[in-house]
Amino acid sequence: MNPIITLTTDFGANDAYTAAMKGVILSINPRVSIVDLCHQIEPQGIFQAAFVLGTAYSYFPKGTIHIVVVDPGVGTTRRALLLTTPSAFFLAPDNGVLSYIIEEASEREDSLPEDVKRPFLEAYDMPLGSDMEATILTNSRYWRQPVSATFHGRDIFAPVAAFLSLGISARDFGETASSIKALHIPRPKVRTDGTLAGCVLHIDRFGNLITNFRREDLPEVATMIEIREHSIQGLISSYEEGDGLLAIIGSSGHMEISVKNGSAADVLGAKVGDEVRIRVAR
Amino acid sequence: MNPIITLTTDFGANDAYTAAMKGVILSINPRVSIVDLCHQIEPQGIFQAAFVLGTAYSYFPKGTIHIVVVDPGVGTTRRALLLTTPSAFFLAPDNGVLSYIIEEASEREDSLPEDVKRPFLEAYDMPLGSDMEATILTNSRYWRQPVSATFHGRDIFAPVAAFLSLGISARDFGETASSIKALHIPRPKVRTDGTLAGCVLHIDRFGNLITNFRREDLPEVATMIEIREHSIQGLISSYEEGDGLLAIIGSSGHMEISVKNGSAADVLGAKVGDEVRIRVAR
Amino acid sequence: MNPIITLTTDFGANDAYTAAMKGVILSINPRVSIVDLCHQIEPQGIFQAAFVLGTAYSYFPKGTIHIVVVDPGVGTTRRALLLTTPSAFFLAPDNGVLSYIIEEASEREDSLPEDVKRPFLEAYDMPLGSDMEATILTNSRYWRQPVSATFHGRDIFAPVAAFLSLGISARDFGETASSIKALHIPRPKVRTDGTLAGCVLHIDRFGNLITNFRREDLPEVATMIEIREHSIQGLISSYEEGDGLLAIIGSSGHMEISVKNGSAADVLGAKVGDEVRIRVAR
Repeated sequence: MNPIITLTTDFGANDAYTAAMKGVILSINPRVSIVDLCHQIEPQGIFQAAFVLGTAYSYFPKGTIHIVVVDPGVGTTRRALLLTTPSAFFLAPDNGVLSYIIEEASEREDSLPEDVKRPFLEAYDMPLGSDMEATILTNSRYWRQPVSATFHGRDIFAPVAAFLSLGISARDFGETASSIKALHIPRPKVRTDGTLAGCVLHIDRFGNLITNFRREDLPEVATMIEIREHSIQGLISSYEEGDGLLAIIGSSGHMEISVKNGSAADVLGAKVGDEVRIRVAR
Repeated sequence: MNPIITLTTDFGANDAYTAAMKGVILSINPRVSIVDLCHQIEPQGIFQAAFVLGTAYSYFPKGTIHIVVVDPGVGTTRRALLLTTPSAFFLAPDNGVLSYIIEEASEREDSLPEDVKRPFLEAYDMPLGSDMEATILTNSRYWRQPVSATFHGRDIFAPVAAFLSLGISARDFGETASSIKALHIPRPKVRTDGTLAGCVLHIDRFGNLITNFRREDLPEVATMIEIREHSIQGLISSYEEGDGLLAIIGSSGHMEISVKNGSAADVLGAKVGDEVRIRVAR
Repeated sequence: MNPIITLTTDFGANDAYTAAMKGVILSINPRVSIVDLCHQIEPQGIFQAAFVLGTAYSYFPKGTIHIVVVDPGVGTTRRALLLTTPSAFFLAPDNGVLSYIIEEASEREDSLPEDVKRPFLEAYDMPLGSDMEATILTNSRYWRQPVSATFHGRDIFAPVAAFLSLGISARDFGETASSIKALHIPRPKVRTDGTLAGCVLHIDRFGNLITNFRREDLPEVATMIEIREHSIQGLISSYEEGDGLLAIIGSSGHMEISVKNGSAADVLGAKVGDEVRIRVAR
């Protein structure tokens, strides 16, 4: 079975930056299967990249190597990481793009924190759980030379991924770190009036508003869901039951606000970060 | 030789929905070669998906598995299909996206029907020819669990495609059906004044207007082609012969209206569905 | 090790033209790895295709086959080429899209020519160096039949690439040519006042302006870089040193004008072809 390397970048489709990375990988290990995860992350869109990666990485086979190159700090002192988890490897700049990967671990004890308002992009140092290991990429032996000032995806992450796929041990690529940068991912919060306050994390191609309410965050009784002056009467369990504006648990396990065969983002004029409130009906 | 699975969706490039499907497929059969056929179908663009698939599927090796996920009815009672033809397998919701596949069969006796005005998206039940077999996907043993309410591409079509590529028999996936949904694909029509009336089926990236006139629909004598107040004097057989607005048999075997090194769609302000008339010159 | 075929086209993502080429290739040689180099070249954007190919081909393994289908002359008498170099194969219409490939050879003796103003798209016949060989594709035995008038990517380039990947010798595909078409690629020029005048060759996804100044074209002393009424004080060697508008040697080895975490193209309203001047500070 060929090793798999996925690529998540903000490179778009108009240049050959992604192709250059693929060429470097295939020059080192021609037996790799390379899968594009997403290249349309907004330039420097660290939070978006973290979310999109979070929706897809778990569907890949154990041992898949995921490269993320959304790297506004390229050429500065930001660290370059290899994160090893029980199921996969992640290569990325240390800027928070792996937040949803380490979140899964951190949220084991986490319910509804009080800090919904910390800005998305304020990264903090998060200690890693005992089942994860971070390596700071410092061993230039596995880099393409010369290393450009602006494109570590091609010159560091791609060759390291290829050597990793050949069986080089994670620890050979550099030094171990005990914490990495994480973004605050806002979780729903209970307000004093008993409502739950969450927000829109992502808007997808169909205009679906993907919120930070997960199935387990939702009350069991019938609820009213509010966003931007609109109210939705409870969740439906399949599109068959709904029409117009509706709320449903989407494919990522989060509550989504949708318009059947239309775009909720267009209908509501909604944006990432918009507040979503849930009232428990009495 | 590795089996090939192609993907046609309306997922666009901004999310990782396509990547999640690829991860599911590769987790079940890592030896598959996955080819993106098209992901820029307009949301819910069933007719467009049917056309685009129709222009490309026949170039793939015998036995290729084509998945189409343009699925506005996901989560409703619409059926999920596996269509087996002499040359390929097709996995898709039963909503008409396979119209061009079964059309080839149905048109054996079909010349110029009178019903050019039926709307594109009114699907009807079409009995299958004896060389095709449809299976309704009902055997949940081959599905990813739990099945989400909104993403059967990942949870049903992708795993079924992967198991099919491993050699599971079509009939193991569910029950046989004798007809599937088809869209009316408008064919050119002879008018009482002797002109032929057809329409624009698709507009491609270059602004070429791909019509429903096929080579065999065209008169042998010199003709005048009319669209939106413009007239074109006969077909050319290569771009060398033409300039400005021209008509030519394009790569799909249909007559296309083009502007050399420009966009006919922009020049004419044309849209899918626009009428195209052919006058036999006297 | 599977042979690699890359694809560079102006087909965009809305149709299945690229997929049809992949189907044709895989039908002839299912063991090929196909890599998309770029499909978002502007329609008929020969210069852009040449540049984008030039930034990426050298990262692929020796023997990679690169297909370029930006082919406004399809169906005319323009020749179809196979160019064999010491490191790779290139299949393309003979319209200048391979200029950066043969430029490397031609520029061995080339310093700063005086002809910066020749239009990009005026192609001339360039004799090939002794380490390259061009074959005009005339042997229709290796083509898909019938050959369409409008899509030689699918009917000629794709099957020829696939047969080449199976080991068919380059000379079997047609007749040898001693020169091919090249675009004038403008090089920086010394003006009478001692300034160097160059231009913007390409604008990437991030709005970086990639100029035709390469590291070896730049003076060693501190310099002032001017574009569109703006001045930049010297090059920086990493983004850490800069802020706002800056100049840096980018990943292609060319000087780029950038805005840190922003778009220089937007800030400056810059376009491909814009003049860039370098003054040697005194």
